[in-house]
Amino acid sequence: MRILFLGDVVGRVGREAVISRLPDLRRTLALDLVVVNAENASHGFGLSPQIATELFEAGADVLTLGNHAWDRKDLIGHIDATPRIIRPLNFPPGTPGNGSVVVSLVDGRKALVVNVMGRLFMDPLDDPFRAVTDLLARQRLGATVQAIIIDLHAEATSEKWAFGHAFDGSASLIVGTHTHTPTADHRILPRGTAYQTDAGMCGDYDSVIGMRKEAAIARFIRKMPGERLQPAEGEASIAGMMVETDDTTGLARRMAPLRQGGHLSQTLPDF
Amino acid sequence: MRILFLGDVVGRVGREAVISRLPDLRRTLALDLVVVNAENASHGFGLSPQIATELFEAGADVLTLGNHAWDRKDLIGHIDATPRIIRPLNFPPGTPGNGSVVVSLVDGRKALVVNVMGRLFMDPLDDPFRAVTDLLARQRLGATVQAIIIDLHAEATSEKWAFGHAFDGSASLIVGTHTHTPTADHRILPRGTAYQTDAGMCGDYDSVIGMRKEAAIARFIRKMPGERLQPAEGEASIAGMMVETDDTTGLARRMAPLRQGGHLSQTLPDF
Amino acid sequence: MRILFLGDVVGRVGREAVISRLPDLRRTLALDLVVVNAENASHGFGLSPQIATELFEAGADVLTLGNHAWDRKDLIGHIDATPRIIRPLNFPPGTPGNGSVVVSLVDGRKALVVNVMGRLFMDPLDDPFRAVTDLLARQRLGATVQAIIIDLHAEATSEKWAFGHAFDGSASLIVGTHTHTPTADHRILPRGTAYQTDAGMCGDYDSVIGMRKEAAIARFIRKMPGERLQPAEGEASIAGMMVETDDTTGLARRMAPLRQGGHLSQTLPDF
Amino acid sequence: MRILFLGDVVGRVGREAVISRLPDLRRTLALDLVVVNAENASHGFGLSPQIATELFEAGADVLTLGNHAWDRKDLIGHIDATPRIIRPLNFPPGTPGNGSVVVSLVDGRKALVVNVMGRLFMDPLDDPFRAVTDLLARQRLGATVQAIIIDLHAEATSEKWAFGHAFDGSASLIVGTHTHTPTADHRILPRGTAYQTDAGMCGDYDSVIGMRKEAAIARFIRKMPGERLQPAEGEASIAGMMVETDDTTGLARRMAPLRQGGHLSQTLPDF
Ligand SMILES: [Fe+2]
Ligand SMILES: [Fe+2]
Ligand SMILES: [Fe+2]
Ligand SMILES: [Fe+2]
Ligand SMILES: [Fe+2]
Ligand SMILES: [Fe+2]
Ligand SMILES: [Fe+2]
Ligand SMILES: [Fe+2]
Repeated sequence: MRILFLGDVVGRVGREAVISRLPDLRRTLALDLVVVNAENASHGFGLSPQIATELFEAGADVLTLGNHAWDRKDLIGHIDATPRIIRPLNFPPGTPGNGSVVVSLVDGRKALVVNVMGRLFMDPLDDPFRAVTDLLARQRLGATVQAIIIDLHAEATSEKWAFGHAFDGSASLIVGTHTHTPTADHRILPRGTAYQTDAGMCGDYDSVIGMRKEAAIARFIRKMPGERLQPAEGEASIAGMMVETDDTTGLARRMAPLRQGGHLSQTLPDF
Repeated sequence: MRILFLGDVVGRVGREAVISRLPDLRRTLALDLVVVNAENASHGFGLSPQIATELFEAGADVLTLGNHAWDRKDLIGHIDATPRIIRPLNFPPGTPGNGSVVVSLVDGRKALVVNVMGRLFMDPLDDPFRAVTDLLARQRLGATVQAIIIDLHAEATSEKWAFGHAFDGSASLIVGTHTHTPTADHRILPRGTAYQTDAGMCGDYDSVIGMRKEAAIARFIRKMPGERLQPAEGEASIAGMMVETDDTTGLARRMAPLRQGGHLSQTLPDF
Repeated sequence: MRILFLGDVVGRVGREAVISRLPDLRRTLALDLVVVNAENASHGFGLSPQIATELFEAGADVLTLGNHAWDRKDLIGHIDATPRIIRPLNFPPGTPGNGSVVVSLVDGRKALVVNVMGRLFMDPLDDPFRAVTDLLARQRLGATVQAIIIDLHAEATSEKWAFGHAFDGSASLIVGTHTHTPTADHRILPRGTAYQTDAGMCGDYDSVIGMRKEAAIARFIRKMPGERLQPAEGEASIAGMMVETDDTTGLARRMAPLRQGGHLSQTLPDF
Repeated sequence: MRILFLGDVVGRVGREAVISRLPDLRRTLALDLVVVNAENASHGFGLSPQIATELFEAGADVLTLGNHAWDRKDLIGHIDATPRIIRPLNFPPGTPGNGSVVVSLVDGRKALVVNVMGRLFMDPLDDPFRAVTDLLARQRLGATVQAIIIDLHAEATSEKWAFGHAFDGSASLIVGTHTHTPTADHRILPRGTAYQTDAGMCGDYDSVIGMRKEAAIARFIRKMPGERLQPAEGEASIAGMMVETDDTTGLARRMAPLRQGGHLSQTLPDF
């Protein structure tokens, strides 16, 4: 299975970059499945139902979220009816929506996509290791599903690396989101899981993690209320990675980063 | 000036990888200045005077530190006599050592190297923005020194990006350390400062930020005292970046990541 | 039921103060049940089996713990055989020991004692509200047990007040521990649960939360390794509160703080 | 000098309780100086100029603030013209207002009042220990001023106790605020400084630190946006303490807690 994952879409320029590039990428890279983290798609804070529709129409199969899941209140009433938008699995019982979804491709192959949040330097949610262990007791890679993609929305690199190794061999791809900064450590772990600490964001990198520089810098220097944070609106990059899996085992065969447009060094998968 | 920066050296395999590769790199890349973050060089925790000597002999000009600065108590009595080992600038007044050093090259050019710590998700030190502003009021790029290299030892990408933009145009290179994960966002900012959110570590990446996997994973799952963290001792990578500056302005002309050995994708500057 | 709760016992002087005063207090106050938080009883860090025995012999019925539960490794192998030592309920599944115990008085009445940890500014354990809700679905105040005492080991006053109100009417006493500082807000909440944000510690208050002043102050001023923290060994206070419950409803009828010895203002229940 | 300090005034009922009781207290307790922390006086968030005026008219001499200093934006333009409203001393240089004020009594005696914030579990401001050390190098107790009152707005009991001991003998009163929970550890420290870890709040204690219970509890249980936090509006208590100092040394002679009205146990100084 040929899978593309794109990191946190930030604001108008981020989603326009995704929407304008995804149809071509789907075709030229012969993608089977596209997963996009969309927690910052609506002006930097949350995901509106309308923008979700636009991202699906552009070619996203599943949209994941994170700590900004509920910044747009109109998503709360919408998420239960839209199973391909998933929120972190380890939110408390009773939270609207689901933390995972099984997607069936047109040819019948199935992929499980999971969104889960880390806890180090973040909100104390339920244990993400246990939540994913429980889920993977019901869905087995290479048995009930042909691929498993886990978006680990987390701050600390230690927690992300630990999670990657803990589930190495049980997923096709484990990819971090939330820091809005692509890492250069993509690799296939010893037991066959593709891993990258952070996918990076889809947005304007001439910014502070996607937000306009001046107000964001001021927050570190002055301890007073300042200008509201607004997404930067210069030329955007899209950032993520592509994985090709073996349909029998569900493990990764090849993996490569993708960075297109804007201020990042450019790279495209060559397989 | 041709500058190499290498991120946190972790344990025996990390320092052996640096020591074995640095002499060749100095020659083949025609390096003028080599700065290495060595806060984890001694078995993952701190820097011993003996290991500092070995790193200097291998070709490092300046060693920087971070939150692990004092893990090796024998460095405390040694640092004042060794000005090319610098500790974070924003430690409290009265802390042994210095937070910056001016290095004179054999040809007379001078470089200011600075080590400073972020505060978000870290210890509440003095304001790093103000500390660096004060220092740069006394040392001016392209005037008193031909290059300024700032190692920003910090956790949060937002603080690192904000810092990079805040001092864009005032330094040759601003590079993050501490997360032990190289980022793929190296670039020259609009006013001429080379920037990368994190240099990555020099150590075994088949690990949890350089430490053996099992004990590190257990800390996230169990809430009990476990095995002591030990550096992983598989094949190490060295990770960092090279910058070429204009000696008149001190700003960056070219920048490229460097990742050699071990499990990372390999890259060498081509200039 | 007449219940005494004493807060975190710190070091030698703390436990000697408890051991020397408890036999008299049991008799003069006609106590039916004594619960003592002992997480710092062993030189400030953890609880040894030997000290647990001494506290039981002095008249404690149940010993509770907290974030220092496993500082003494010899308790780990001991706790499963000693059900009256309880550790936080919301530690992960598989943790040795239990988070609650039902104690039978000599006259047949029963009391449930619970130890649970907060999460704000602390380790991200399982949700304490959900853990206690689940437990109280199996043990009902005034039905299966005549009294329920909950030691909420937590840092933030907001989390403690919220917890108190959330379980008001479902427990006889909800008392905070961990800050080592007695609060003056003891009261019976509207639905009948006695509440106090923190019991305070049993130890030398001429200290920094029970530890010798100089080393503890230095940690806030210098950012270097210093002297090891040691319990202060001046005259100790014991601190906690007494509650009298209605055996039919299990709710609190009367409540009063107790502070004896050392530097605290002195108070004894007058009922 | 006879000094009254009252903790964080929360919302309408909190300030009405202060305003209605303060004139009588000033007279019956023969108070020379009244200091009130007012950071939550405006609907729980900040202090408006209008409410500041009302508190001054009721008998407050100095109003202190904390992390909510700038919640009311209209205070920002007002504070420089109102030196008896002080904000934390260790805010960055350039912050409006001052962190201390010297008040002259009608009889010519002078008191220095200081507001400073802790850093543990809070925003990383400048070092409060160093800030106060610097200030007290310019103002000496029993020399330039007859009394020094320090409102330490902080979360952690360890930082508060450490601060108290660090400045014992250099101030008349060191009192904590911010947790909204009065502590029962008031005492005169060995070198003569009156100390209490937290003054408590002036507001409705049938709440979660002054806010309505339901919404505040929900924040700990659900991880979704909920109802906005609103001050509780039941019967309020006022909470704080009174200190009598020696005008020659400036040190404390007597100290007693004050808790009047509402759900707290009632106590009035008897000197
Ligand atoms: Fe996020
Ligand atoms: Fe994000
Ligand atoms: Fe570090
Ligand atoms: Fe490091
Ligand atoms: Fe504790
Ligand atoms: Fe404790
Ligand atoms: Fe506050
Ligand atoms: Fe407050």
